[in-house]
Amino acid sequence: MIVVLAGGVGAARFIEGLVQVVPPRTITAVVNTGDDITLHGLHVSPDLDIVTCTLANLIDREQGWGIVGDTAECMSWLVKLGAPGWFKLGDRDLALHIRRTAMLNEGFTLSEVADSFRRSLGVAVHILPMSDDPVPTCVLTDAGEVHFEEYFVKNRARNEVRGVRYAGAEQAKPAPGVLDLIAQAETIVIAPSNPVVSIGPILSLPGVRDAITASHAPVVTMSPIVGGAPVKGPAAPLMRAVGLDVSAVGAAQAYAGLLNGIVIDTVDAGLAPRIEALGVQVAITDTIMRGPAEKANLARVALELAGRVTSSE
Amino acid sequence: MIVVLAGGVGAARFIEGLVQVVPPRTITAVVNTGDDITLHGLHVSPDLDIVTCTLANLIDREQGWGIVGDTAECMSWLVKLGAPGWFKLGDRDLALHIRRTAMLNEGFTLSEVADSFRRSLGVAVHILPMSDDPVPTCVLTDAGEVHFEEYFVKNRARNEVRGVRYAGAEQAKPAPGVLDLIAQAETIVIAPSNPVVSIGPILSLPGVRDAITASHAPVVTMSPIVGGAPVKGPAAPLMRAVGLDVSAVGAAQAYAGLLNGIVIDTVDAGLAPRIEALGVQVAITDTIMRGPAEKANLARVALELAGRVTSSE
Repeated sequence: MIVVLAGGVGAARFIEGLVQVVPPRTITAVVNTGDDITLHGLHVSPDLDIVTCTLANLIDREQGWGIVGDTAECMSWLVKLGAPGWFKLGDRDLALHIRRTAMLNEGFTLSEVADSFRRSLGVAVHILPMSDDPVPTCVLTDAGEVHFEEYFVKNRARNEVRGVRYAGAEQAKPAPGVLDLIAQAETIVIAPSNPVVSIGPILSLPGVRDAITASHAPVVTMSPIVGGAPVKGPAAPLMRAVGLDVSAVGAAQAYAGLLNGIVIDTVDAGLAPRIEALGVQVAITDTIMRGPAEKANLARVALELAGRVTSSE
Repeated sequence: MIVVLAGGVGAARFIEGLVQVVPPRTITAVVNTGDDITLHGLHVSPDLDIVTCTLANLIDREQGWGIVGDTAECMSWLVKLGAPGWFKLGDRDLALHIRRTAMLNEGFTLSEVADSFRRSLGVAVHILPMSDDPVPTCVLTDAGEVHFEEYFVKNRARNEVRGVRYAGAEQAKPAPGVLDLIAQAETIVIAPSNPVVSIGPILSLPGVRDAITASHAPVVTMSPIVGGAPVKGPAAPLMRAVGLDVSAVGAAQAYAGLLNGIVIDTVDAGLAPRIEALGVQVAITDTIMRGPAEKANLARVALELAGRVTSSE
């Protein structure tokens, strides 16, 4: 049993590697929902959809998000009718949001919707939202506090970031099964996702940190920062805003007290001593997930590191 | 000021003729919402959309409904995700339902949504739903009572019809402006729509029949039944179920006590004496609206009839 704490694109790609080296049914992805947002009255869950559609091999691989071959007829008509157009939703993509919203309104939980979707799309990996409760990630900027998607997509990450808040996290509950899965996991993997806005929301939920600390499973991650820059996304200003170095060292520091091992990229090999000084074991490989082979390699190296960490306990 | 009581396709085509002979801004369509239905959590208003999109010249003219050139990507994905697929919704079409639902949830009324849509799509004719309250048309069949769209689309009008109910009509209010518009109208036109499921719901609303009776305006219609069969749609079994003859005579009888004149098709000229015996004046022309010329002709004949009826008062 492997539990993967997951954001969007980086996590989805990593899990594509993982399913090449362990049986998919032994994996559960606990997915960030801090990016979830209501648009046009529809419940949009960016990270759940990215993970599900990537594993269903339906993702637009150029973008990393959205559905391959998707069109934008509905979106262009929404704009014609006066709706805001800053968040692009494809026609196929919209089906996920419409169906999710309808099921939520019928009384299903977000967990049930996520499970229904991954089954409908033929995904064997278990997919759980981090919570069935809303925990929107809010970014405090020089222009005020906005939802993460507003900061990132609407305002194109142009504003200065002063802080991040996981709104409602204290009152939210981890989704049913999350704490038990962590307690029973043989390995806990923190995906190579943004530590502040992808993994941070999951760790902010009551009981999650304690469950990880209490677990006997090794906890490993892969640095999403390679050569001092994020592989994808707005990690740099967000990490800086919470006092983290934009480096593999900062990635390890983000999970201080939780982490046993980290896979870093060959270009960052020189940082290994500084990370080991934090009490975190290091494995070094090519971490850029260009294709299936690199993904499988990264998964293999991460699991080997987890094995090493366990045996050294 | 012309008020048109309107259903879907027939009404939309008639109004396309009317705008050729009078200024569009002098026309208000009061549109049936008895067909409105919630699908996938979205508020679908078939007749409002048919009238609005026809007048915006965006309608799929082959079908009479739906948007020209529309695709069905979202729909096919909704079905993939387990949603019911019996009511086809195009990608562009869905934008209307998504936006309408979002605006209703934000507190706008259906009237405000309809007005916003017709403005966004450049329609000069005023478009009002018959009511801002839900008044679903229910068809009592040999297999139980179902929503009109279930009877017509899902079950393809295969069930025997025993009756029709305008659910909630007694508690519903005509949309703001409807009764005043009828009171102030110079001409009231009942569009060539299904008398039972398109015009019937409008007339079932409290105050509407009285307002029409009290009005000094001539009330004219055009028979949607030509040569003993409806031009389009499921009028035959529905008219029979409420005791109406499926003929131009039945069309006139449907509006007994309200109607001053009816335009019937040349093929039905022989029925004129029976209709005149009901106290309803008759005009005879080619009523099949093949193109712009026939539509304009029908509108002209209807208005001339209205003028005749007035002068004979």
